[in-house]
Amino acid sequence: MEETSKLIFGVWFLIGAALVFWMQAGFAMVETGFTRAKNAGNIIMKNLMDFCIGTVTFMFLGFSLLLGEDCMGGFIGKPNFDLITNYANFDWSNFVFNLVFCATTATIVSGAMAERTKFSSYCVYSGLISLFIYPIEAHWIWGGGWLSQLGFHDFAGSCAIHMVGGISALIGAAMLGPRIGKFKKDESGKVIKVRTFPGHNLPIGALGVFILWLGWYGFNGAAATSLEQLGSIFVATTIAPAIATVVCMCFTWIKYGKPDVSMCLNASLAGLVGVTAPCDTVDAMGAFFIGAVSGLLVVFGVWFCDHVIHVDDPVGAVAVHCLNGIWGTIAVGLFSTTSVPGNDSIKGLFYGGGFHQLGLQLIGFAAVAAWTAITITLVFLFIKKTIGLRVSEEEEIKGLDPTEHGLPTAYADFVTK
Amino acid sequence: MEETSKLIFGVWFLIGAALVFWMQAGFAMVETGFTRAKNAGNIIMKNLMDFCIGTVTFMFLGFSLLLGEDCMGGFIGKPNFDLITNYANFDWSNFVFNLVFCATTATIVSGAMAERTKFSSYCVYSGLISLFIYPIEAHWIWGGGWLSQLGFHDFAGSCAIHMVGGISALIGAAMLGPRIGKFKKDESGKVIKVRTFPGHNLPIGALGVFILWLGWYGFNGAAATSLEQLGSIFVATTIAPAIATVVCMCFTWIKYGKPDVSMCLNASLAGLVGVTAPCDTVDAMGAFFIGAVSGLLVVFGVWFCDHVIHVDDPVGAVAVHCLNGIWGTIAVGLFSTTSVPGNDSIKGLFYGGGFHQLGLQLIGFAAVAAWTAITITLVFLFIKKTIGLRVSEEEEIKGLDPTEHGLPTAYADFVTK
Amino acid sequence: MEETSKLIFGVWFLIGAALVFWMQAGFAMVETGFTRAKNAGNIIMKNLMDFCIGTVTFMFLGFSLLLGEDCMGGFIGKPNFDLITNYANFDWSNFVFNLVFCATTATIVSGAMAERTKFSSYCVYSGLISLFIYPIEAHWIWGGGWLSQLGFHDFAGSCAIHMVGGISALIGAAMLGPRIGKFKKDESGKVIKVRTFPGHNLPIGALGVFILWLGWYGFNGAAATSLEQLGSIFVATTIAPAIATVVCMCFTWIKYGKPDVSMCLNASLAGLVGVTAPCDTVDAMGAFFIGAVSGLLVVFGVWFCDHVIHVDDPVGAVAVHCLNGIWGTIAVGLFSTTSVPGNDSIKGLFYGGGFHQLGLQLIGFAAVAAWTAITITLVFLFIKKTIGLRVSEEEEIKGLDPTEHGLPTAYADFVTK
Repeated sequence: MEETSKLIFGVWFLIGAALVFWMQAGFAMVETGFTRAKNAGNIIMKNLMDFCIGTVTFMFLGFSLLLGEDCMGGFIGKPNFDLITNYANFDWSNFVFNLVFCATTATIVSGAMAERTKFSSYCVYSGLISLFIYPIEAHWIWGGGWLSQLGFHDFAGSCAIHMVGGISALIGAAMLGPRIGKFKKDESGKVIKVRTFPGHNLPIGALGVFILWLGWYGFNGAAATSLEQLGSIFVATTIAPAIATVVCMCFTWIKYGKPDVSMCLNASLAGLVGVTAPCDTVDAMGAFFIGAVSGLLVVFGVWFCDHVIHVDDPVGAVAVHCLNGIWGTIAVGLFSTTSVPGNDSIKGLFYGGGFHQLGLQLIGFAAVAAWTAITITLVFLFIKKTIGLRVSEEEEIKGLDPTEHGLPTAYADFVTK
Repeated sequence: MEETSKLIFGVWFLIGAALVFWMQAGFAMVETGFTRAKNAGNIIMKNLMDFCIGTVTFMFLGFSLLLGEDCMGGFIGKPNFDLITNYANFDWSNFVFNLVFCATTATIVSGAMAERTKFSSYCVYSGLISLFIYPIEAHWIWGGGWLSQLGFHDFAGSCAIHMVGGISALIGAAMLGPRIGKFKKDESGKVIKVRTFPGHNLPIGALGVFILWLGWYGFNGAAATSLEQLGSIFVATTIAPAIATVVCMCFTWIKYGKPDVSMCLNASLAGLVGVTAPCDTVDAMGAFFIGAVSGLLVVFGVWFCDHVIHVDDPVGAVAVHCLNGIWGTIAVGLFSTTSVPGNDSIKGLFYGGGFHQLGLQLIGFAAVAAWTAITITLVFLFIKKTIGLRVSEEEEIKGLDPTEHGLPTAYADFVTK
Repeated sequence: MEETSKLIFGVWFLIGAALVFWMQAGFAMVETGFTRAKNAGNIIMKNLMDFCIGTVTFMFLGFSLLLGEDCMGGFIGKPNFDLITNYANFDWSNFVFNLVFCATTATIVSGAMAERTKFSSYCVYSGLISLFIYPIEAHWIWGGGWLSQLGFHDFAGSCAIHMVGGISALIGAAMLGPRIGKFKKDESGKVIKVRTFPGHNLPIGALGVFILWLGWYGFNGAAATSLEQLGSIFVATTIAPAIATVVCMCFTWIKYGKPDVSMCLNASLAGLVGVTAPCDTVDAMGAFFIGAVSGLLVVFGVWFCDHVIHVDDPVGAVAVHCLNGIWGTIAVGLFSTTSVPGNDSIKGLFYGGGFHQLGLQLIGFAAVAAWTAITITLVFLFIKKTIGLRVSEEEEIKGLDPTEHGLPTAYADFVTK
């Protein structure tokens, strides 16, 4: 039976990987729909290329840094070229699975840096995050590295994927600076008005959210090893985003007088990000509370970027992925309960675990955040100093489709503003 | 081998549930594409929220009404809070599966009530249908209730889901009244002209149909318990919609001189709805005939709503789900044959079963239709008397996006009419 | 364990078939997005109907020609009506699986013949390709026919599907002639300028590419029989398109000064087509090289159609499916290696196999190409002589939506050019 079970969940693992690949389409649609028509082709292209370029760098180095034999005291996997030289013993399923996860990390960033980043710079960035930034921290968490040895828990990547993508998004957007016209300043340089650029295609953006939600059943569930565990993960992956969305709807309704559509769509994603790390250790009520917090965090995050730190994040990637990635990482230490199938050791603060797991989660958060912040800053600095991060003012105003890709418009037959 | 088979079909059951979740995206795209641009955001929001609000009410009460221990003589499942208090023994897979089915029922209604319903009213409605209307009749059919005890058969929900959603859609649309300008009347109040409001984005609507068709393989197939049965269900789920679409194409071509695109798209859905109840009891020819009738029923239904009862159903939900839901329920009593794998007892009128099963199907249809009609009428009456069902004339003309959600337009960069 | 494995991969086979069905949506979106708005409804309709009409003809004859008892020396399967008369012993899974493959072949053609083909003619064509053209050559390759007996290898259809669709597309587009305004000629009839009609909805087209890529995991993987083989197929199905896209990006960047978005999207498809036949016999490096060539072939193919043979192929179907279908067929004879799980006999030229397999692949290519070219030419000639292939000049200028379907526009609320 054990062998049978392995085979069944082995096939499901690959189906899950295909679902995670599908999330690339979701990110492409969300980011396109929520930005302006003049950059639609560029955003599609960035989402396509981060997967494709990432495949090259991940194939030749990233994969072994992630899953190779642990070395340097849990810091990296040993680089090797088994992929090429010893295919008969190659770990095919794990390659595909980890590649699509890696690509998810990379693609989170494109939304936050949308509408003003040089395409060439984006290609360099996406190659590098898949080459070593993601693989090394993922080795710590999933490749047998030091965090996994400590007992840090992140089942599907609130920390390893979303927080890392979200921090990179934050730093990238900050280093780029805001889009022209985003922040109106007075003479002293103080921001006195924040402008919203409405997305040009809400239905496409909403479709992207549904795609992501569907894909998330694979994202969270792929690594399950029993039916009970998989069912429980599906419950968490359903309840958390649903509650997040309801909470966000209520909050925006009360706060702004009307329920906000695009914020609610982002809230669904926020709930999904929040429950990603603890999806295998929380019960329905745990997912409920995690989702409820996520639904508020996303509103707070968007406000915080706009009005406090004045970082221009066109699609709310920082609010969704960075804040909720952190929240999900910590939530493992709060809500984990051993009443969940497959979890017989991780207990959160509210379920009799004291501060033990919470402490581990904070260590993991701090270490991965530091690693990401330092390396991605170096990457973006390197790009800035060499080819430059940002397109010219003229190109930005004209749109990246014509200037970066020779595409007059992504909507040739429509009259656009 | 039996244990193995259970495990395999257990995993498939969850994959099927994910596919049914995906149908939410299909409904959102169909309904958005086939209505006007000024309400696109509102329709997206309704489709998102009926799932999310439904999750809350289904989680706390609906689920146990559906699958709890049978009581009150087969009328309801016993309400309980196992979900919260006894998670280790909770039935995770069934929760997710039944939740996504429940949400499908709820979302069918949004299309028929599109472009004029108050958003707050829709939220109340969708909470209530998931709280008790759907769970109780589904208990009768799938939860061990009185209809299942009688021998009524509805494998995947022509009756439990589509007819219930379709009747709710019909009553809701009728109580709301038509959109402004839909029916031109003479002085005596007789309708003299019926106006068609063309959908604003046919490709998105068509994508929705493809999404739904894909999701339907999960919808019909998820509960299969053998490979032969699953294969046979896939055959039925392919042939019926295909034939329905061909028949509809031919019919509209002959009748109107040109093959009608959006009617054919609806015909695909009609064929799917029609074969949903009998998908596990009909062979290829049964599916063929069911589909052929569905392809005509949908044209008839749209005409009937427009020209006979003058109910304004913007997307044809009544024709697709109500009429074909009834048709599928009855078709079990006509075409069921024991030559289909997994069906060793249900015989239809045309396959030597006499009127026995047909009679049962008619009882089920009548009971569920009555339950739905009465309860949903009460729900809508309650809403009408309290917060009101319909937006003001001015809001309707302006569009629900700006008035209900503060969203100036869902297509910010396009010049719209 | 063997029985268990059969059951698991039997369920996966059907999931794979559902994924291949999903590719219909991908083709519909790609073809719609990359053509003009005035024909959007027509293209949707053609994509919908080739599946639905194909189901009818495949059900009554095509399926048995493909998988029936081999007769006429490996030329066809014996026609029979088991589907209708002996359902208890019917091969359900294979029916669904082969039907969705058949429909893929049919739908490839619609893009190349877009924007000027009579809808009625397209219906006849799609019925006939599913009735006998595809089933017979597929019998040779997959139904136990003469090519399979020889040892020709085409795992998932670079030849059987894509090349056949691509050749039909080429011949169809050539016989139709170019869209009005595509080629500007001087007095001697020499083409002096080639005009590009930009697609009207790039995001929808890009979504179609992502849909196709997702579906391709089912397309290539469905027939796998072990987990190792399936994993290896997923690796190939990921690496080839990724590399093709990167190569195409670099090439267009260097050649035209800017990285071309729609060409890169087509390159992803080209890489997928190229790796389809050898997906179960090549390792990661094989997929890498196949993809690299595909990424160039697609650019060459588009240029060749436009500037050398002057065939107007609006979406690049010939470049993607015909050229890369041929390439994939040949690639089996070049890169196949027995280090890949499940492949213990097929060796390519570069892996110690000499010219044996390559020769077989060339025989298969030539035979299938000849069969397709002859039969499809006869089909299109028959249509041309009877109902005519092409709409009138006036209809073409006005658009096929209003003239063929009575649909004023697929985008009623938008101002279009």
